Amino acid sequence: MTTEAPVTKISRLAALRSALERGTMRHGQRMINSLHPAEIASLIESLPPAKREIVWEFVDPELEGDVLVELNEEVRAELIGGMDADELIAATEGMEVDDLADLIGDLPETLNERVLRSMDAQDRERLSAVLGFEQDSAGGLMNLDAVTIRPDVTLEVVIRYLRMRAELPDRTDRLFVVNRYDQYLGGLDLTRLLTEDPERTVGEVMDSTVEGIAPEAPAREVAKLFEDRDLVSAAVVSSDGKLLGRITIDDVVDVIREEADHSVLSMAGLDEDEDMFAGVVRSARRRAVWLGVNLATAFLAANVVGLFEATIEKVVALAVLMPIVASMGGIAGSQTLVLIIRGIALGQVEDANARWLLIREILVGMFNGLFVAGLVGLAAGLWFHEWKIGAIICGALMINLLAAAITGVSVPLVLKRFGVDPALAGGVILTTFTDCIGFASLLGLGTLFLT
Amino acid sequence: MTTEAPVTKISRLAALRSALERGTMRHGQRMINSLHPAEIASLIESLPPAKREIVWEFVDPELEGDVLVELNEEVRAELIGGMDADELIAATEGMEVDDLADLIGDLPETLNERVLRSMDAQDRERLSAVLGFEQDSAGGLMNLDAVTIRPDVTLEVVIRYLRMRAELPDRTDRLFVVNRYDQYLGGLDLTRLLTEDPERTVGEVMDSTVEGIAPEAPAREVAKLFEDRDLVSAAVVSSDGKLLGRITIDDVVDVIREEADHSVLSMAGLDEDEDMFAGVVRSARRRAVWLGVNLATAFLAANVVGLFEATIEKVVALAVLMPIVASMGGIAGSQTLVLIIRGIALGQVEDANARWLLIREILVGMFNGLFVAGLVGLAAGLWFHEWKIGAIICGALMINLLAAAITGVSVPLVLKRFGVDPALAGGVILTTFTDCIGFASLLGLGTLFLT
Repeated sequence: MTTEAPVTKISRLAALRSALERGTMRHGQRMINSLHPAEIASLIESLPPAKREIVWEFVDPELEGDVLVELNEEVRAELIGGMDADELIAATEGMEVDDLADLIGDLPETLNERVLRSMDAQDRERLSAVLGFEQDSAGGLMNLDAVTIRPDVTLEVVIRYLRMRAELPDRTDRLFVVNRYDQYLGGLDLTRLLTEDPERTVGEVMDSTVEGIAPEAPAREVAKLFEDRDLVSAAVVSSDGKLLGRITIDDVVDVIREEADHSVLSMAGLDEDEDMFAGVVRSARRRAVWLGVNLATAFLAANVVGLFEATIEKVVALAVLMPIVASMGGIAGSQTLVLIIRGIALGQVEDANARWLLIREILVGMFNGLFVAGLVGLAAGLWFHEWKIGAIICGALMINLLAAAITGVSVPLVLKRFGVDPALAGGVILTTFTDCIGFASLLGLGTLFLT
Repeated sequence: MTTEAPVTKISRLAALRSALERGTMRHGQRMINSLHPAEIASLIESLPPAKREIVWEFVDPELEGDVLVELNEEVRAELIGGMDADELIAATEGMEVDDLADLIGDLPETLNERVLRSMDAQDRERLSAVLGFEQDSAGGLMNLDAVTIRPDVTLEVVIRYLRMRAELPDRTDRLFVVNRYDQYLGGLDLTRLLTEDPERTVGEVMDSTVEGIAPEAPAREVAKLFEDRDLVSAAVVSSDGKLLGRITIDDVVDVIREEADHSVLSMAGLDEDEDMFAGVVRSARRRAVWLGVNLATAFLAANVVGLFEATIEKVVALAVLMPIVASMGGIAGSQTLVLIIRGIALGQVEDANARWLLIREILVGMFNGLFVAGLVGLAAGLWFHEWKIGAIICGALMINLLAAAITGVSVPLVLKRFGVDPALAGGVILTTFTDCIGFASLLGLGTLFLT
């Protein structure tokens, strides 16, 4: 019996890592294979590329497939590249069908064929069923190991049947009740199977209020359903009512993690595939696209400044204050933007309360506009010994913080309406607005009152 | 039987919302109470404040406690404020202990006492056990409804015992095996209970490799453990080996969601409590702190520009190009920063590969530096009909993109070492660097070669 806390587990990983560093790999192999596949994957990722192969060599062939699934795409491709066909086929044996479906796209084309041929007919059919759905749909998430029973048998018969099966798939919390046409009728929780009178029939005890999920339902909606209803597993049901498979919470947890990851990354113009493990040239090329987009907007802002060259030449102080107006507008706008994007994702922002939110954010913007603008105006007036300059930056900041509030609320709502991901495009559009409006108001007011 | 897809469920929510809008609330009550607590909470949040009370009035008193737990803090406080003591006490009845522990801090002090007094002695003791732990620790997440069995009984006896209990707590996927001193020995999955030979003893069949979690373990480590090991529930075990309670996946999913939320929000200087539902003044005050911090760094950047007033007066083109250098540095740096912060969170970034990552990001920075700097240099040269200006912004961009790569990698690593959340402070520090270095190199090179 071990009652080891995760804390000690993590320090064990650290010990293993430093053992690898020092090259003392005597009992490393045993230590590695006592870890779970996801933990081995983390370990491999956290090593510099040269050391990864060493650890990979130590991984038990039976675990290889499960470790590959957990690995980041780039690292996975790197390791797959170093394996020969037989090793790869051995690694795919015994994997769950949904995991295999995720992996198979990354295998060399020629090998795909061989993997499919190495499977028995039933598994092959199942695999192609899962491959037929989008990876980020309910169909792509489902597993085909649902245990089904009929509604007219008694619980006692079910219990005897399970004992004969001698094994149940992982994370089986409920059995699925289907009629003779394989149509989904409801679920029978193992807890009820164990506590209800064994003389009763499945039909009497089953829960028929649990909805089946359409295979086309997007993964994020599946995740929302699992979260809202605290589910452990749920049935995937075709449009003609047939039970196709089941989705389990472990895959949903991955969806939630990836979705969260996606919003963080896309705000910086990155996608999930872009990562620390990709090759330098490939990474540079991907990020260059984003830099290019932002470059266009930066030129727009520069162009606004260019309109006022004559003013700047006369009042250089305005050029000095430019970074402050732009930066404050960007910061305040991002705060609003992030709140609204998050509200949209959580389903808290709807047309019903959009106007209310806009007014609210404008009020917050006005309050902080007064505060920031007052402070900066005073500081600038003292700095340049000229109260007019203070008054001008004060006015420019007020205008820009108001514009930031309005843009921060409306940009994500408009993008959402046009089906564009607000997390990806929202930030660029927002800063384009706040930069241009900030510069225009600062330099415009300067031109009016100082020249 | 319903095989309703989540898609239709969502449109049903929309229908309900528009019914509320139009004020046709005839069968609204029934519709609302057919939703799950988390869904009712989403609905209430998505309404403007005036409509929230109306919906709240319709919510079944039995569901009120569970809805309150799911609600956002501000909205919850608003609704609690409108309830009298008896309603509140009725709402807390029948709630799970861990949920009640979360809620109780938000109740008025005087009511706390009454709620505690309305509970029976055992529940009160349990509640105070959970309240004794930090909310974001394993102890704070745990529930006290673990079903325990002894290792020396046969599976048949366990099955008979469960049938006598007639009910099992939600999300019971395993029973917990303890000795006579209540010390945790292992877990017995219901699936094994149902498939193994009933003559065997619990001790023979149980899984003793599943580690107990220390009550002090931080919630994020618990989440990592659940994710890595695909758990549905796990035991919380005190330092002397006693079983304290169990953690279930539904609470872990909430932790994962909150953690992800936290990183998105803190990059914009917001915290979980800050949200769209707080009062205007309170919101403004909270965000002002962040604006203030950023204001200080913006003044620093302005100060750098101020050093070169004489240069700008002579070559106004430099002022026009300032936004481009600053913006490109900020964008490139954020990309690196976000990747490293995420890598740290996922456990992919370690001291072992820090140097390798730094070199990699510098190379990516150099590639994109050449690309962006070349493009901008050419454009600026043509714009101002002066190749020297093109060369100068080209040089400044090269310097700033390299600086961005180095800062993007090292700032989060240094912050982590000092125990500061890189997601919160990383962005400000990064843009301070890229702004100052960008302006200094552009204007510095300008001073050297143009005046």
